[in-house]
Amino acid sequence: MATVIHDIFEMQRTGDTLRSSGRRIGLVPTMGALHDGHLSLVRIARERADIVVTTIFVNPTQFGRGEDFDRYPRDLANDVALASAAGTDIVFAPESAAMYPPAYRTYVHVEELTAILEGAVRPGHFRGVTTVVAKLFLVTKPHVAVFGQKDAQQVVVIRRMVHDLNFDIDIVVAPIVRERDGLAMSSRNRYLTPEQRREATVMHRSLRLAEELLRDGERNAAAVRTRMEALITGHSSGVVDYISIADADSLREVELCSPGENLLISLAVRFGTTRLIDNIPITL
Amino acid sequence: MATVIHDIFEMQRTGDTLRSSGRRIGLVPTMGALHDGHLSLVRIARERADIVVTTIFVNPTQFGRGEDFDRYPRDLANDVALASAAGTDIVFAPESAAMYPPAYRTYVHVEELTAILEGAVRPGHFRGVTTVVAKLFLVTKPHVAVFGQKDAQQVVVIRRMVHDLNFDIDIVVAPIVRERDGLAMSSRNRYLTPEQRREATVMHRSLRLAEELLRDGERNAAAVRTRMEALITGHSSGVVDYISIADADSLREVELCSPGENLLISLAVRFGTTRLIDNIPITL
Repeated sequence: MATVIHDIFEMQRTGDTLRSSGRRIGLVPTMGALHDGHLSLVRIARERADIVVTTIFVNPTQFGRGEDFDRYPRDLANDVALASAAGTDIVFAPESAAMYPPAYRTYVHVEELTAILEGAVRPGHFRGVTTVVAKLFLVTKPHVAVFGQKDAQQVVVIRRMVHDLNFDIDIVVAPIVRERDGLAMSSRNRYLTPEQRREATVMHRSLRLAEELLRDGERNAAAVRTRMEALITGHSSGVVDYISIADADSLREVELCSPGENLLISLAVRFGTTRLIDNIPITL
Repeated sequence: MATVIHDIFEMQRTGDTLRSSGRRIGLVPTMGALHDGHLSLVRIARERADIVVTTIFVNPTQFGRGEDFDRYPRDLANDVALASAAGTDIVFAPESAAMYPPAYRTYVHVEELTAILEGAVRPGHFRGVTTVVAKLFLVTKPHVAVFGQKDAQQVVVIRRMVHDLNFDIDIVVAPIVRERDGLAMSSRNRYLTPEQRREATVMHRSLRLAEELLRDGERNAAAVRTRMEALITGHSSGVVDYISIADADSLREVELCSPGENLLISLAVRFGTTRLIDNIPITL
């Protein structure tokens, strides 16, 4: 079973000691409620590091007002068991009051990339993400950190932060893990009613439709988005927050999809009060 | 003579190697134009570390429009000689284009503490400072970093950032080094005309007057500030930007100075186009 560390300074000393002894540290930052998607990140970290640190922290600064911070699922004992079984050596699970004491005032912010897509719908979300990831980097002292492609914009934003602030950390991105019917695994899937759970597969189907259209020669991004939205609204109660076909690095929307371009097709859909995201990277 | 490193990755590798070999790294971040104040920081770092890294980088992000970024004095060869003589092992002098490439978008910001005093007059200044200091920390990988009390608010802001983001770095603050007539050493003093140079001593005299008034029992901060301002405007052409008597930790202005309280008396004065700052910490 993994060692569980709650104290920031103990984690920092442990990271230091491991580094001094020449051990390579791999970090998997999570908010807990671990599913097979997270566990795939742990396995990738396991392959690339001597010691795998999985962090479990439901980070308050990345939730907006009215979002699901309070009801976000928390089950540390179960998460520790799952993380351990997947190859975690150390679970770091700090207290919120230690991460953000009352006098806390410092934020790490990536401009522009965070103002669009998820950032447009969830103002402040990425500022919370980059801030907590910077802190977790400085506390756990990893050589490599693994993030999931599921949060595609987060990956772009974190890569930008790592490069800009000169964090000496390799960022590895793991592919999305899906349920058998295509739904991307997410801790929020458990909020869905059985009916919504069935409907939610329309998200992945719309992404596959987009891929098919583009591979068949459609170049007009607006036309693809229209077909995706029609599929979703025609086959589910889902309300589309956005559908995006963007350059995979800059996240700028494209109008015409050019051969050779790395694109990210992403979307966010609300089923009742549950908001899900999904994406596929595609190179034409 | 110190080794001069310009490349970010070479500096990072060097920091790593030094750390791995058990050496303690001391950092002195400067913008060059070194004077005895800076050299005192190097000497303090020398006492507290095995390897002293002095960084020389005129950081564009901490200068506002219309400020003196373009005319800020730059003389790397002289700075390297001075830094070496004071005990620097490595001078890190990166290029601006490497520190802030075109796609750069990430900023570290400390709220509230940066909105007052220098921050009120120089919007964005501290965001530039915290950003570059975070980067320099991540590139040079120090165990200890030395800053000057001259930039008193900067010290408070950096301590806040270090604590909030969990930088595992000891922050040491070195006392102000003054010219024989009391003027605080500053790279900007060389902008002063001989007349302004004589007048500028009024800043330190006003701080000593404040200390004297408080030690003699004056408790009303506004009364002290009025006496300081009268001294400055009565004996120089200086234009007061602000005079502050504040709690040394929160930087909140005090109305009544209570015994036992740690205060920071600080001021900024313009002599022609040259803006100088000075301060004294005082505990009644």
